Amino acid sequence: MRLTRPFYLRKIAQCRRELVERGLDGLFILNHLSIWYLTGLFHFPTERPIGVFISTEEDNPRFFIPKLEEDQILEVWDANIETYFEYPGVVDPLTWMCSRLADLGYGNKRLAYEGNIPVSYKEVLCRALPSVDWREAGDIIAGMRLVKDEEEIQLIRKAALYSDFMVEEGVRVVKERGLVSEIEILEEVVRRTVDKMLDELDPIVYVSGIASGLVCSGERSAFPHGLPSKRRIKRGENLILSFGCIVGGYNAESERTVFVGSPSAEQRRMYEAVREAQEVGTTALRPGSRCRDANRVCLDVLRRAGLWEYVKHRQGHGIGISNHEAPWIEDGDGTILRAGMVVSSEPGIYVPGRGGYRVSDTVLITEAGPERLTSYPRDIEHLIIDI
Amino acid sequence: MRLTRPFYLRKIAQCRRELVERGLDGLFILNHLSIWYLTGLFHFPTERPIGVFISTEEDNPRFFIPKLEEDQILEVWDANIETYFEYPGVVDPLTWMCSRLADLGYGNKRLAYEGNIPVSYKEVLCRALPSVDWREAGDIIAGMRLVKDEEEIQLIRKAALYSDFMVEEGVRVVKERGLVSEIEILEEVVRRTVDKMLDELDPIVYVSGIASGLVCSGERSAFPHGLPSKRRIKRGENLILSFGCIVGGYNAESERTVFVGSPSAEQRRMYEAVREAQEVGTTALRPGSRCRDANRVCLDVLRRAGLWEYVKHRQGHGIGISNHEAPWIEDGDGTILRAGMVVSSEPGIYVPGRGGYRVSDTVLITEAGPERLTSYPRDIEHLIIDI
Repeated sequence: MRLTRPFYLRKIAQCRRELVERGLDGLFILNHLSIWYLTGLFHFPTERPIGVFISTEEDNPRFFIPKLEEDQILEVWDANIETYFEYPGVVDPLTWMCSRLADLGYGNKRLAYEGNIPVSYKEVLCRALPSVDWREAGDIIAGMRLVKDEEEIQLIRKAALYSDFMVEEGVRVVKERGLVSEIEILEEVVRRTVDKMLDELDPIVYVSGIASGLVCSGERSAFPHGLPSKRRIKRGENLILSFGCIVGGYNAESERTVFVGSPSAEQRRMYEAVREAQEVGTTALRPGSRCRDANRVCLDVLRRAGLWEYVKHRQGHGIGISNHEAPWIEDGDGTILRAGMVVSSEPGIYVPGRGGYRVSDTVLITEAGPERLTSYPRDIEHLIIDI
Repeated sequence: MRLTRPFYLRKIAQCRRELVERGLDGLFILNHLSIWYLTGLFHFPTERPIGVFISTEEDNPRFFIPKLEEDQILEVWDANIETYFEYPGVVDPLTWMCSRLADLGYGNKRLAYEGNIPVSYKEVLCRALPSVDWREAGDIIAGMRLVKDEEEIQLIRKAALYSDFMVEEGVRVVKERGLVSEIEILEEVVRRTVDKMLDELDPIVYVSGIASGLVCSGERSAFPHGLPSKRRIKRGENLILSFGCIVGGYNAESERTVFVGSPSAEQRRMYEAVREAQEVGTTALRPGSRCRDANRVCLDVLRRAGLWEYVKHRQGHGIGISNHEAPWIEDGDGTILRAGMVVSSEPGIYVPGRGGYRVSDTVLITEAGPERLTSYPRDIEHLIIDI
């Protein structure tokens, strides 16, 4: 599963309309995610820069790539491709790209760049094209990425199914193998999921990380970003299974707190507070509401339960080609939610020395309200692993 | 295996001396690799900025981190740590860090930033601390990273051993299982290597990618950066096994071209040219020589063999906490090689529709000359898999 050429043509057309409206003659893109989103050219960012130029005067983008990546791009685009040999080069590649833009007649136009590029890149642009009227326009592509279209949503739906599958398999591994280590759970879940994805999805680009996650148990589950360790899980503990998948470049996540054996009264109370916060917060993800308001009502549940000291993060974040992207379901984001946005809803609490609790779903905002794309059960009775 | 606290204290002292020499009062670091290198604080870069301030007036760094990462840092440092709640925040985290620097008396000092930070970050620095005299000093940490010290070299040596092990296992998987797919080879090799690393290295931080690689066969081996696919290998083909490992945060790589069954005369000729280029290029990696000169004599072997049209990349790159870093063994890099530098030596040729050939070793520059840290055999008879 992957996006189609018409998707990219639509997005490029949308970008060009925006440039015209702003009186800009072109956008010079140097960020790998922006390039991938707008043109389908996937690459790992390295020291070798890749540039894409979107002009208001030409339908198709122009590509400036290292010779090494030539074959990759030919799968997607077949024209306007120029290559440089290597980095750092006798002439640095970015300076060369600028000289090509000058040759093409853009040397004294009004061009845009994105504010996410390194300061050192911006300096090359200004030095190599001193008569260009450079304007920052990082919000064009960032704005387009905010709302997913039908093709993108299909990929995220599929990624969400695999993410739920990962949680299922995590529980199954513990049932099958007993008190194993965090790393063993993660490795076995990833193995089963990658095998399933390889069987079912064709063609698939295989990159490390198409299925991945964090598994933390016991007192280590109180580290929200703890890396899996060789620690073996024990009876009476919580275990946070935090998994995510990528399908056709689009992410989803499914995270559940499960209990190894019957939970104590304290564990039940803590978990129920988080589950309720997630329920209330998710329900608040309605078109027309502001991100910060959903976050407030979500975290208010934890404040009222007297658990604020254990809260370490916001309700959630947007999700798409990046596993964290705008909009942010947080106090500082006043974005109004719109149908087509996809976000995580994942409040948590982390009690030092005892354990953590988090529930995350990937949620699509629809005209009718929030739709959970992940649906592994959240009621505590379904989260107890009886071993 | 990991670096020790004295390593970080030495590196911070070295950085502070450099600041004093340049008449700078401090360095505000926002790049995750610079932070990791200088302080041992590992984190995946996300939207939540982490800032580290190195002052000429204080021995210890100051940390500005999201609350979420608080536990990670407490494993390494125990003082001068301030946290912010979340991103994007009602006050953005970077603006808050700047206000803290002002509170600490740095509001009208001469401070440095690194040119690898995003343009948008730099704008916040200038807006939030308008009376600071900001200077670019990205070369301080970049310069320190160029030459590895004994502790770093030990980690790279170990990573090189595992990288060789991966090539060995890649060959073994084909011998054991026959004409399997590229992905099956990669998955099985990664599995065996991660298991071995987990057994042998303690403590280890487990992150996806501690052992990884590319496996491309047949005509796909002509794509230097091709991602592994479901394509099954065939008799008579070349197979590029390109593997790398990370130990204590430090990378190494070992790459070999192997032959499924007896190679043809053409395969032998092509391979021998690459092997000779790698031999000549590696021998040229001597202290006192320039990077570009090694690259020239290395690639000259391929030019003289009439294979220049198939060359798609330089001889190699530096390797350390990044798997690609300066110095670059390429025409545009005049850096003089010094003992303690570690680089890859990996010329290759790529014949469209037929196949690719590459040999890569991780090489330490010593006073006595180049020392290969990877040592899987390179003679063609050892690279034929007889199945």
